[in-house]
Amino acid sequence: MTGGAVARAGELAALARAVRPGALSTDPGDRARVAVDRSGHRQEGLPLAVVRAGAVDDVVATVRWAAAHRVPVVPRGAGTGLAGGATAGAGSVVLDLGGMDRILAIHPGDGIAEVEPGVITAELDRAAREVGLRYTPDPASAALSTVGGNIATNAGGLHCVKYGVTRDAVLALDLVLADGTLLRTGRRTVKGVAGYDLTSLVTGSEGTLAVVVGATLRLHPLPAATGTAAAYFASPEEAAAACAAVLDAGLRPSVLEFLDARTLGAIHRAGGEVPATGETFVLARTDGFAAAAEIEAVHAVLRRTATRAEYTGDPAAADRLLAVRRAALPAVERLGRVLIEDIAVPRSRLAEAAGALTALADRTGVPVFTFAHAGEGNIHPLVLAGGQDPAAVRETVDEVFRLALRLGGTITGEHGVGTLKRAWLDAELGPAARSLHVRIKQALDPLGILNPGKAI
Amino acid sequence: MTGGAVARAGELAALARAVRPGALSTDPGDRARVAVDRSGHRQEGLPLAVVRAGAVDDVVATVRWAAAHRVPVVPRGAGTGLAGGATAGAGSVVLDLGGMDRILAIHPGDGIAEVEPGVITAELDRAAREVGLRYTPDPASAALSTVGGNIATNAGGLHCVKYGVTRDAVLALDLVLADGTLLRTGRRTVKGVAGYDLTSLVTGSEGTLAVVVGATLRLHPLPAATGTAAAYFASPEEAAAACAAVLDAGLRPSVLEFLDARTLGAIHRAGGEVPATGETFVLARTDGFAAAAEIEAVHAVLRRTATRAEYTGDPAAADRLLAVRRAALPAVERLGRVLIEDIAVPRSRLAEAAGALTALADRTGVPVFTFAHAGEGNIHPLVLAGGQDPAAVRETVDEVFRLALRLGGTITGEHGVGTLKRAWLDAELGPAARSLHVRIKQALDPLGILNPGKAI
Repeated sequence: MTGGAVARAGELAALARAVRPGALSTDPGDRARVAVDRSGHRQEGLPLAVVRAGAVDDVVATVRWAAAHRVPVVPRGAGTGLAGGATAGAGSVVLDLGGMDRILAIHPGDGIAEVEPGVITAELDRAAREVGLRYTPDPASAALSTVGGNIATNAGGLHCVKYGVTRDAVLALDLVLADGTLLRTGRRTVKGVAGYDLTSLVTGSEGTLAVVVGATLRLHPLPAATGTAAAYFASPEEAAAACAAVLDAGLRPSVLEFLDARTLGAIHRAGGEVPATGETFVLARTDGFAAAAEIEAVHAVLRRTATRAEYTGDPAAADRLLAVRRAALPAVERLGRVLIEDIAVPRSRLAEAAGALTALADRTGVPVFTFAHAGEGNIHPLVLAGGQDPAAVRETVDEVFRLALRLGGTITGEHGVGTLKRAWLDAELGPAARSLHVRIKQALDPLGILNPGKAI
Repeated sequence: MTGGAVARAGELAALARAVRPGALSTDPGDRARVAVDRSGHRQEGLPLAVVRAGAVDDVVATVRWAAAHRVPVVPRGAGTGLAGGATAGAGSVVLDLGGMDRILAIHPGDGIAEVEPGVITAELDRAAREVGLRYTPDPASAALSTVGGNIATNAGGLHCVKYGVTRDAVLALDLVLADGTLLRTGRRTVKGVAGYDLTSLVTGSEGTLAVVVGATLRLHPLPAATGTAAAYFASPEEAAAACAAVLDAGLRPSVLEFLDARTLGAIHRAGGEVPATGETFVLARTDGFAAAAEIEAVHAVLRRTATRAEYTGDPAAADRLLAVRRAALPAVERLGRVLIEDIAVPRSRLAEAAGALTALADRTGVPVFTFAHAGEGNIHPLVLAGGQDPAAVRETVDEVFRLALRLGGTITGEHGVGTLKRAWLDAELGPAARSLHVRIKQALDPLGILNPGKAI
């Protein structure tokens, strides 16, 4: 054992004493498990240790220890991130918040919940439903991902078109700052303008500004009813135009999804009940008081240009239509390892983006499967990496980012920058914004111990 | 003329040369006009000069000059602020952005507008309506206030209950930073998580972090129809409970307002067609595709406990019901000078707050008239100052703030902290948050030249 390693072992022993007994693990299996997230990206080496925080005190102790010893701290929820925001390399300590998973309170009268960061997103929604409410942010990972992780990435989902993203649901945050100070931002009211909006600043900052140890979240009433419509279009342009027409008509769908022909083909090959005739699929849902009348109106707009359209208010029939959207990712993933990209473009450019992605795949020979949250122009091009030429895959992914910026959009709509998109961040933000990001980071984390090398 | 004054005159001459010819005025009348805002609050002395910016270059030149000479810069829109956020005292320069009032573009396909900061809020809405859209933030000052001022205070309004506050409408900002650097934050897409949320950080920062010289704003489709309901209740508790019941039923009113008995009394005395029988008034509106069915449902909820309730889909009949809400502020202002306060409480505490405000007025002898945006618990207690004992008025206002904090709310829901509420900010934020505010301010404005003494 070298002198440095001995010193480090002594430091880790001090951390082990500072946190709940048994919270700290240096077991290689544990360290390997928390070194990666769902992106599959891996940093050099393994983290020194993982602290499974059971309470705020463990977080404070860990951050204080890290500040004293200048050790990087990587906050972690369920590790479902797709951008390498929670990967941890040699010399870092992972702060696993998954065990702080209590729903502290649900206040139906105020439409709010108070939770610890490790609560599974779908669990919060389930608990809210028991009192007639729901938690609307619904990333595809909702059954696995934590509310804290969703806050770190400002996660989106299918219902954003009507209910907004995670940021829109976060009213207040309990934070541990980089020096171990505890701080509550925000408030329990929907409106409030006292002080700077630290809640929004920290939401989406991917663990680089503070550690989220609690959140006060907005809930919405369970809708009285839902409606579901599905339609097929001969071209992506017609499908995108139909989505735009729905929104332009003043209708407020709760879901508005777009799947391209290549994705339908994958579903078809996987045994899904969809045609393999090169069409584009649109799924729309409505909810609330007027869901039935509104889905009829949505259907009326869609069928104007669709080759086929249907709608239903019956939950079982709706499930059959929803199954197409649900089948998409598993069907594509059967074909090999995929890179799940996440650009957003102004919604009027959706058709152009979908067309460009098809052309891109034709040019590079790397299959690209396109889903989109059409209402927000948030597109997930799934780039098939497995079995493909790595250089062609890289060129395809780079061109996806170039396309987003060329169309006036962003390199990430809801997944975050993490490690994997940092190379593209300058191209989107520009030097003045980058410099300001660094100044804000320094103001909140002068030692640079919070998730360094991520997000900015 | 002293040596200092001569030096200052030379410096101002340099500023006059750096901006558009004629943009700088040292005329005492101009300086007096821009020294105050609608709060009526006045600082010591008059500002040195006012720069009527005609373009971004004027703003950059003024901020650079101010940085070089360590002169405070007070950005100003229409001066309709109610918290003293735009007041300017001796030694400062006012940067009047009211002349940068162009709507640069409206993109119906993306539902966005690009504007200069001096655009009058209602003018933007009017322009949007010409293409079937609307701008939803609607502070009471909308006919006079500027979009830039609304962004500075994160202004609210009647439609926030359904469409959110100004922050929810701001997608991107063009900023001049404290060193004169130009920076664009945000994006043209509704979703986007690349980098920190500087757009939200600057929105509501009352000119203390950067000068807003442009904004990309979200527009919404004009609703296909609207519905309006009004109801009277025997007690504020019943009225507040009815408002809560509307929201709990999953209905999404576009307006949900509450006026207390004392306010109705003032309207009655001013000749308004309302009863003076001690009742509480609730106004609700619905809009969109299902407005007619939804207002019927709202009415059905309200009438359960109301002494009287009615609803209509007819615009002329709706105007008669809306007139009660519109008459409130003018009716109260007829009684003398009023302080327009702006607390918010968790919406379940609305009845308690209304009751406490009535009791407070009884105790101090200072009349308090209460309106509320009931859906967000945002309450405007109008404290009659004219003709009252100043000490009793002060005690009444202080107790309004104490009440907000005691009920878990905020000292300002939508007007801002400005100058007038700074004394109460510590009580709401606490020392850790205050310290972080100062660090963020220093990161963005190290010389402290941007609207010093305001907001934080």
